Amino acid sequence: MSKLFVIGMGPGDLDLVAPKALAALKASTDMVAYGYYLDLLGDICHNKTHHDLPLGEEIARARLALDLAASGKTTALISSGDIGIYAMATLVFELLDQQLQGKESHPEWLDVEIEVVSGISAMQAGASKVGAMLGHDFCTISLSDLLTPWESIDKRIHAAGAGDFVVSFYNPVSKKRDWQLNHARDVLLKYRPATTPVMIGRQLTRPDEEITFTTLAELDAKDVDMFTMVSVGNSESRHIQNGEKNWIYTPRGYSKKL
Amino acid sequence: MSKLFVIGMGPGDLDLVAPKALAALKASTDMVAYGYYLDLLGDICHNKTHHDLPLGEEIARARLALDLAASGKTTALISSGDIGIYAMATLVFELLDQQLQGKESHPEWLDVEIEVVSGISAMQAGASKVGAMLGHDFCTISLSDLLTPWESIDKRIHAAGAGDFVVSFYNPVSKKRDWQLNHARDVLLKYRPATTPVMIGRQLTRPDEEITFTTLAELDAKDVDMFTMVSVGNSESRHIQNGEKNWIYTPRGYSKKL
Repeated sequence: MSKLFVIGMGPGDLDLVAPKALAALKASTDMVAYGYYLDLLGDICHNKTHHDLPLGEEIARARLALDLAASGKTTALISSGDIGIYAMATLVFELLDQQLQGKESHPEWLDVEIEVVSGISAMQAGASKVGAMLGHDFCTISLSDLLTPWESIDKRIHAAGAGDFVVSFYNPVSKKRDWQLNHARDVLLKYRPATTPVMIGRQLTRPDEEITFTTLAELDAKDVDMFTMVSVGNSESRHIQNGEKNWIYTPRGYSKKL
Repeated sequence: MSKLFVIGMGPGDLDLVAPKALAALKASTDMVAYGYYLDLLGDICHNKTHHDLPLGEEIARARLALDLAASGKTTALISSGDIGIYAMATLVFELLDQQLQGKESHPEWLDVEIEVVSGISAMQAGASKVGAMLGHDFCTISLSDLLTPWESIDKRIHAAGAGDFVVSFYNPVSKKRDWQLNHARDVLLKYRPATTPVMIGRQLTRPDEEITFTTLAELDAKDVDMFTMVSVGNSESRHIQNGEKNWIYTPRGYSKKL
């Protein structure tokens, strides 16, 4: 039986890697991942064959993982966060779909047993660090227009505003993209208060974690980089301070009963 | 130092409980949770003082957790899934906020050190079981109108449709609520195809897990109960079959490059 584990390793802190993910990593002989993730995982990756392809080589990575598993090697394809959320899992199934439609010539992929193991995503790591920011209906939007037309992204930002969802922005900026986040801010400002709490979470749960509390009006792409997650509260989210400690929470509506 | 851990235990499978959550459970002397969750956790809850309040007693549970921690007992407040997502975490901060505003008379709560530990939420458990349903922008909507006015929920369903988000419905039905899910289906049918893939996930990752693949047109509240999560794909989500195996994935747009 050829086996491919598709594993989310969580945001970075090894204490957030689920036992199921650890067991899958241990069972694998071959690991396919961006090298930085293997560094974060540390010892568990020793004595495994590493296949470290650079960022941007996502399709090659998914193909390689299917090829290795099909050749009989128990293989782990690894992303940080939840591999099902803006990560590699969907690409594995997209390739499988292409093969089922006869657009690929890898019938051996169809014999691979695939198991997806989810992990804690960055929005959750951020929300829990600042309190309970995702306490009510929320959405996620990737601001990367590499694969998604900007019109679709813009439509979603407007919909998030109209629906008053808490919004977590993935891929808020990159070296080549810097205007989308400020545009998203300006759209959301049409729907919710300038004082809406915002969390900027950089390198969440990792040794160099930095968390900044700001407001929607003051959110600026210059304070954000590729290692950062930005979550914007809904119109009812609250930023509170207890002594030195800052929290953001989004109420569910219990206040009527308190 | 008085300490309150606010812990998400994941969907049910103990192999999905993060080491950080396990360590927090071990460090606690007192556990506040709906009893069924303590049953799922099993051995780790032995030799702890259990405070098992029934469903519906959420406010009392949050108060009790703050009171116990303030009295010096290291306390774990536990929910299934991610305690930050439609669960108890937000209520703890709402109570803290009330105290900060002088609307409660528990200054001792302000001395409690609070740590929130997130967990795998049901949408993630479901998405990973069926492949990669959350592969692109998504939102979550709770269909419970106990605490949220129905107009707000309805507005969000329309926004989810307009934005073409993958939608995960939490609290899709209850013993007293049965019409909201079919209404939500009818709204989404205005925005996306009748053939849009839908996952109905019952008791996800638990021994009696049942997963049903259907379409948006065929989604019916009669097939759903309180232990169920319903996720509806976006207009591009695909249901594929490889032999006996069914998958749903939501593409990110790599097809242009494949």
